Amino acid sequence: MGRPKSPPDVVIRRLPLYARSLRHLLDEGVCSVSSHDLGERINVTAAQIRKDLSYFGEFGKQGIGYDVVKLLQHIEHILGLNREWPVALVGIGHLGEAIARYEGFRSQGVRIVALFDDDPAKIGREVEGLPIIALAEIAAVVRTTPIALAILAVPAAQAQGVTDQLVAHGVRAILSYAPTVLQVPDGVWVRSIDPVAVLHSLTYYLAREP
Amino acid sequence: MGRPKSPPDVVIRRLPLYARSLRHLLDEGVCSVSSHDLGERINVTAAQIRKDLSYFGEFGKQGIGYDVVKLLQHIEHILGLNREWPVALVGIGHLGEAIARYEGFRSQGVRIVALFDDDPAKIGREVEGLPIIALAEIAAVVRTTPIALAILAVPAAQAQGVTDQLVAHGVRAILSYAPTVLQVPDGVWVRSIDPVAVLHSLTYYLAREP
Repeated sequence: MGRPKSPPDVVIRRLPLYARSLRHLLDEGVCSVSSHDLGERINVTAAQIRKDLSYFGEFGKQGIGYDVVKLLQHIEHILGLNREWPVALVGIGHLGEAIARYEGFRSQGVRIVALFDDDPAKIGREVEGLPIIALAEIAAVVRTTPIALAILAVPAAQAQGVTDQLVAHGVRAILSYAPTVLQVPDGVWVRSIDPVAVLHSLTYYLAREP
Repeated sequence: MGRPKSPPDVVIRRLPLYARSLRHLLDEGVCSVSSHDLGERINVTAAQIRKDLSYFGEFGKQGIGYDVVKLLQHIEHILGLNREWPVALVGIGHLGEAIARYEGFRSQGVRIVALFDDDPAKIGREVEGLPIIALAEIAAVVRTTPIALAILAVPAAQAQGVTDQLVAHGVRAILSYAPTVLQVPDGVWVRSIDPVAVLHSLTYYLAREP
């Protein structure tokens, strides 16, 4: 029986967690890890890890475990992190502007290339060198820079309408800050948020408390 | 002239970016990196990197660069990521509930141990095995589990009041989803959000598009 060609989304959602855990192992100087030990770090059973990874090929050896560096590189490759993705940010309110100014975006395989907001008071203003434009202008933008990935920082009430516009112009993946369930056609993917990286700049101060 | 004892916050905010970039280098099998090459990856000058790191000791050698693994381990240690931090999550609306259910928290040096919300309709309900309790009960919680770190998923209008209550009970670091500037006393730190990790599960699908 051959491998399934399309792993379930729940597996894809776990891959960045595996990658993160593997990086922690690397940080600790660990070169090899069993599915059991890896699973314990991320609250997933060893069987689940082996099943998840089986979608992508053969990893690890019975009784030896996974080569941390190789498995990590493989997962990064699977996740498409070996290139840079142009990103549209929609909704330049307080949150959106914070996202636009967040420097982490400039080094993570993704780059914000366009800012959209339909508030006439905002259009034309620049944030981090990018002008805010109306979402109606997205057609012109994607003509020169195809955008497949978007971040939504709009109110929940507007999120579905904005999503529909984005999808109509080629966006296929959306990271949403809006507290609402978005309806999207097959082949379009939606995620909410991961605050862990930000927490890691906060623990610095906690670690130094008396 | 001795080193300053307290690096500026802007330096601390860059450390997780350095760490992230160093992990990418490890992923690529790179063992040594110059401040110039590291800087290029994160849009920071080589001089800035050297200055930032000088707050914490001596790293790298002229003409040789930084040992990626050692520098990464050192930065992780500086960031206090060698232990687990109990976290309070305040505001169990749509967003808060998504955060409470996010499995990434269970393997990242931080763990949500208490859920707060003042909506009587929510109090007592369980999310991921934790009961939602009123914020007024935080005094009882911190008596057994001191909580220094909190995530705010409350509306902007409530964020300041909640922050004041958290700080009064020992919280010293806050990751906030609320689109508002929080006023906090010296010694308390506030951050907003990093969506990069979530984006990394979306690029999987984009990388597989025709």
